[in-house]
Order: sequence, then C-alpha cells, then structure tokens
Amino acid sequence: MPMAADTITAPVQTVENGLSSSRSDLLAVEEPLQICLNGSPLSITMRTPGSDLDLAVGFLFTEAIIHDVDQILSMRAEPGLDPSDSAAEDSSDRVTVRLKPEVAIDPARIRRNFYTSSSCGVCGKLALGALEIHPPRPMRQPGPKFPSELIYRLPDVLRQTQHTFDRTGGLHAAALFSPAGTLLGLREDVGRHNAVDKLIGFALREGTVPLEDSLILVSGRAGFELVQKSVMAAIPVLAAVGAPSSLAVEMAKRFGMTLVGFLRGQRFNIYSGNWRIE
Amino acid sequence: MPMAADTITAPVQTVENGLSSSRSDLLAVEEPLQICLNGSPLSITMRTPGSDLDLAVGFLFTEAIIHDVDQILSMRAEPGLDPSDSAAEDSSDRVTVRLKPEVAIDPARIRRNFYTSSSCGVCGKLALGALEIHPPRPMRQPGPKFPSELIYRLPDVLRQTQHTFDRTGGLHAAALFSPAGTLLGLREDVGRHNAVDKLIGFALREGTVPLEDSLILVSGRAGFELVQKSVMAAIPVLAAVGAPSSLAVEMAKRFGMTLVGFLRGQRFNIYSGNWRIE
Repeated sequence: MPMAADTITAPVQTVENGLSSSRSDLLAVEEPLQICLNGSPLSITMRTPGSDLDLAVGFLFTEAIIHDVDQILSMRAEPGLDPSDSAAEDSSDRVTVRLKPEVAIDPARIRRNFYTSSSCGVCGKLALGALEIHPPRPMRQPGPKFPSELIYRLPDVLRQTQHTFDRTGGLHAAALFSPAGTLLGLREDVGRHNAVDKLIGFALREGTVPLEDSLILVSGRAGFELVQKSVMAAIPVLAAVGAPSSLAVEMAKRFGMTLVGFLRGQRFNIYSGNWRIE
Repeated sequence: MPMAADTITAPVQTVENGLSSSRSDLLAVEEPLQICLNGSPLSITMRTPGSDLDLAVGFLFTEAIIHDVDQILSMRAEPGLDPSDSAAEDSSDRVTVRLKPEVAIDPARIRRNFYTSSSCGVCGKLALGALEIHPPRPMRQPGPKFPSELIYRLPDVLRQTQHTFDRTGGLHAAALFSPAGTLLGLREDVGRHNAVDKLIGFALREGTVPLEDSLILVSGRAGFELVQKSVMAAIPVLAAVGAPSSLAVEMAKRFGMTLVGFLRGQRFNIYSGNWRIE
C-alpha cells in the first residue's frame, strides 16, 4: 500500500484522573475526494487519503456505473493544492475517470450525483427501488468452504496488518482472504464502506473480480451497504467483528451469501449461508 | 421514547470452540425511511425505526432546510404496509412534512435530494462548497464549563440508558447532558448521524434549541458530520467514546467548539476548546 498522508499529528491535552498533560497525537485523516466521470463531477466522498484510484474504481463498480475495469479509458489522481487545509474548496483531492467512448452510462445512475460521507455508501438515489441490488451475476452455489478454526484467526491477522488503526484507533479496515487463510488484500479508511470500495477496486485492478473464492472481513458492524457491495463483487462470505443489522441479514439470505457476525476470540455467529462454514 | 420495532429476533447459529449451536438472536433493525417535503420526496435514510418525527425534524434542521420547528405546518409518520418485508418498495416508512406557505425553501438545498445510509449524513451535495457549515448563530463564548469528574461518568450513564444496544450490540447512541450531568435526552440508531439528528430533532420539538448549555455524547468515533450537526444546534461540547477524525478536529477549532475523544474510564483527550473543561 502506498504510504499516503493517512494520519496527521495534532496537539492534544490528555486528562487522566484529574491531571492534565499536553502531548502530540495521531489523527486519522478525513478529507473530501471528488470523483469526476467523463468531465463531470459525479460524487464527493469523505475518505482517508490513500488508494484513491482503488476507491474510485471500486465505487464506480459497486454502484453499477461500470461492470469491468476494462471500460475505463484513463484515470488520474490529482492531489489537492494545499493538503494542510482540507476544508478549502480548491484543496480537495480529485480522481478524474474517462470511460471508453463505446461505454454507455445509465443517466439515472449518474443523476444521483451523490455525496458520500466517510461513513456512507448508499447516497443520492432518488427512489426506494434504487436500493435494490443488481449484481452482475448470481452468487455461485455452494461456493468455497471456510473452516471455523481459520475464521477465528482472521481478526488477529487484520489487526496485525492494519498499521494505521494501531496508531490512531480511528480507521476501519476491510480485508480479503482465501479459503486457506491467505491475506489477499487490505484497505483502511475512516469509512467502512470506503475501505470495502478500496478493496474491491484493488481487486478489480488486479483482475481478480469476481471474488468467488474469497471471504471479506470488516472491522466493526455489518450494515446493508456492506452486503450490497460484497454481492456486487460476488464475494460469498462476509464476516464482521461486530453486529449485523436486520437488513444486512435479509439481503445476505436473499443473495445466498454467508454472513458471519460478532467474530471475537474462538466464537462467531452465522446469520446466513452456514453451508460455507466447516 | 416510544417502543418502536427497533429490534427483531432472528435464528442464528453460534460457533464456539468448534461447537455449533442454534439459538435466537436480537438484531438491530435497519430500514429505509423516506422523508417527503411539501409533497415531493426529499431523502431516503437507512435508519432504525423509532423517533421518526424527531429524525425528520432534526434532519431538516441540521441540513439547514428549516431553521426553526415553527416553520413546520404539519408532519405525519406513515408506517410501512408490511414491516416484515423492509426491502419491498411499498413497505417503507415515510414521514411527510408540510412547511408553512410563507417558508421559502432554497431550491439548491432541495435539489440535493439525498439518500442517506444508516451511517451517513453528508449526502447529495453537488459541490465541495456545500460542505461548508452555515450555522444559524455563532457559538457562544466562552460557554458552559464541565468538570472532568462529570465527564468521566457520562459513558456509564449512556450505556445504562441505552437499552437496545445492550440487547443487540448494534446501535449507536447520542445523548444530551446539562453541565450538572443531568441526562436531557438520548436517541439510538444503527447510524451515528441518525442518532444525532433524532436527538437534535427531539430538542427542537421540545423548544430547547439552541442547546448552548449542553454537551452531546456519542458512542463510537467522531467524524466531520457529527461536528457539523452539533454546530448547527449550537452545542458547545461534543464528546466521543472513540477517536475523532482530522476534519472533525479542524471544524471544531474553526467554530470554537470543544471536542473530546477517547472518553474511557477516568481518561479523555481534549482536541479543541479546552476552556470548557474544568
């Protein structure tokens, strides 16, 4: 992973047992990234800098604006003018994407023009029907199997590899694993959905999507949008360290996906698709 | 607080030390809520049912579409047709709001038409400038003071009052406290920003905004949008159990707000506005 400016130091006053001390602390960076498609602004995402091209590709894919990385003609990241002043309008980072001329874009998808916060991925859609998932292919059945002993170990691998969280305590992570437990990729972000988009974008650029033989592990909880993104990339197993929401479970069942939650220590819960856990 | 269907039971298979058992688990409900303004759809939010009118009022206020609850002529919550099938388009819950005829709406604010996920509040804006905060009034200086001994105790009060989290482990909470430590209100949601909007909407409907003498405590981390919402309601102190982001600290400093993070046990960090902590 490139060593982008994903953290900054800030003066902080620590109060402990009534005593105050001044020191320097590391903060996870949250900054706007604008994605421009074919010359027009498409979305603004509050994200942690780093893997911005992965994020743009993953976002276009999980939002079904593109269905393959081959549809992209060119892509360029433009760093901000003044990274120290992230709130100024002209300081934002930007990724400009041009699609091949023959690629048709659904204007309704573009019209969403959505802003996404550092903690959001289902933005800008204008009707409830837009919440529906339209995966490019049905989930493969029964798909790969993951031994429970392997699943127990994955959060430790995530934490050991997640360097920025160790330093700031403020970043979410998403990681891909093979059925043998090999770490295939890891991305971090202040927004869980951005971490997933970065990871799927990375896999798209590596040419490994559909990810039909992998498991995605996310820090924190699993909501609807994480299931949606995983389904788009044909990932058959989503495991979360925290709790799933009702809609996450409902969607996982509908798409024949395995959903694991509360993965802590030698214990986890299976909410859907138990045939992929040995 | 009304006892809405904020949890559902679901069958779950627990795997522990290689042994599997079946049981019933409680899940935090995540469902779409559509907010309609003057007869047109304005936004769809993935939220936990309950306090939907508070959520709608808080959302309209923190997005600067209204600046006072008096501008609302009528408001009505319409429950979905089939709460057990939250994914069907016709089953969504809906809040319809009508403003008084003399209330002018900025079309640019309406045009955002944003979707917000269960974890997002800054959606649909079309230009980076829209990220700028336009609070109705400057933050009062120096404002109230909160003793550190009082601040230590607040997370315990939050957890003791946050019933749904106890049952599901899946909900965020936001609570308002007075300088004497009195709990003024608490709201829960799968989305942290929704919990804050519900809480601010509750206060608006109670007539206690601007909340110039209060502290808002949030579970989890503090990102940009939580500072934005708190500034809109003139709340001078935001305390988070988790880490703040760089942009949260930057915005808190810009608006003269006190930002506390990592509030755990007898310890916390002050990132901005230390004059309000004794």
